[in-house]
Amino acid sequence: MASVLIREAKEGDCGNILRLIRELAEYEKLSDQVKISEEALRADGFGENPFYHCLVAEILPAPGEPQGPCVVGYGLYYFIYSTWKGRNIYLEDIYVKPEYRGHGIGSKIIKKVAEVALDKGCSQFRLSVLDWNKRAMDLYKALGAQDLTEAEGWHSFRFEGEAMRELAGK
Amino acid sequence: MASVLIREAKEGDCGNILRLIRELAEYEKLSDQVKISEEALRADGFGENPFYHCLVAEILPAPGEPQGPCVVGYGLYYFIYSTWKGRNIYLEDIYVKPEYRGHGIGSKIIKKVAEVALDKGCSQFRLSVLDWNKRAMDLYKALGAQDLTEAEGWHSFRFEGEAMRELAGK
Repeated sequence: MASVLIREAKEGDCGNILRLIRELAEYEKLSDQVKISEEALRADGFGENPFYHCLVAEILPAPGEPQGPCVVGYGLYYFIYSTWKGRNIYLEDIYVKPEYRGHGIGSKIIKKVAEVALDKGCSQFRLSVLDWNKRAMDLYKALGAQDLTEAEGWHSFRFEGEAMRELAGK
Repeated sequence: MASVLIREAKEGDCGNILRLIRELAEYEKLSDQVKISEEALRADGFGENPFYHCLVAEILPAPGEPQGPCVVGYGLYYFIYSTWKGRNIYLEDIYVKPEYRGHGIGSKIIKKVAEVALDKGCSQFRLSVLDWNKRAMDLYKALGAQDLTEAEGWHSFRFEGEAMRELAGK
């Protein structure tokens, strides 16, 4: 395989990122849940106070090859905060196109997120995994992560739609 | 009880917020885990790109009472991002001093966070709860929240310390 570059996404990558977001959702058979638009990704990630940051994995063509570089994966993250430990980083999504798996691209994205975390003074790197995704769970554990739901009993809760509007009294 | 004001925290509130963070950790018998300092809370919450936002609950003295207003609770939140739904809000901590409970102060904080969420164009309001804290779980469910760990099998994972440095190759 040609060489892979992991780099920070630019605003012009949002179209490619959205295609990969949809691919990931299709893989999970949940593509009807994707409500995000390219415009929202541009506005929310590339304004003055960005709501997220994103890395893309780009395949660089060999010298003399006609096609340009090609985005084949992404890792979308943001900063979160612990009142005990301070700044932390959260990896919301990580995805590599199936035909490019097995070359360590996912690991390179994870490694780069950990580097950003250390550079920004974060003490923790968090992510969430579905319990049926045993391969991912085993990988993260093998890399030294702790399953906080298993170890400490943390459950994720979500208010959405009508429940949120009712809470806000609107 | 005198009247309660829920307001955005100012930098000068960080000392009071840190005392409440420590109180909450003591209640959980985990106060040795609190590594945060007042300086970090000031720097991280009140700079140009704040890592968190905070609401405080303040008891206002009745007219003629000698003491000033008194901070008795807080809700610390930040913005997160869903690649399906866009902007979301996450409530990291909510705490009310035991002697001020039972007056709806916690509910007022939650309501205010939901208002901020809607004002900022968020579609979800998330938080995490420990599974032994059945009272909190029942409250959030009664308010319309969904337990995503129970319903969909989401587990929280964390890399920290040596595991994070190893990932980053540092």
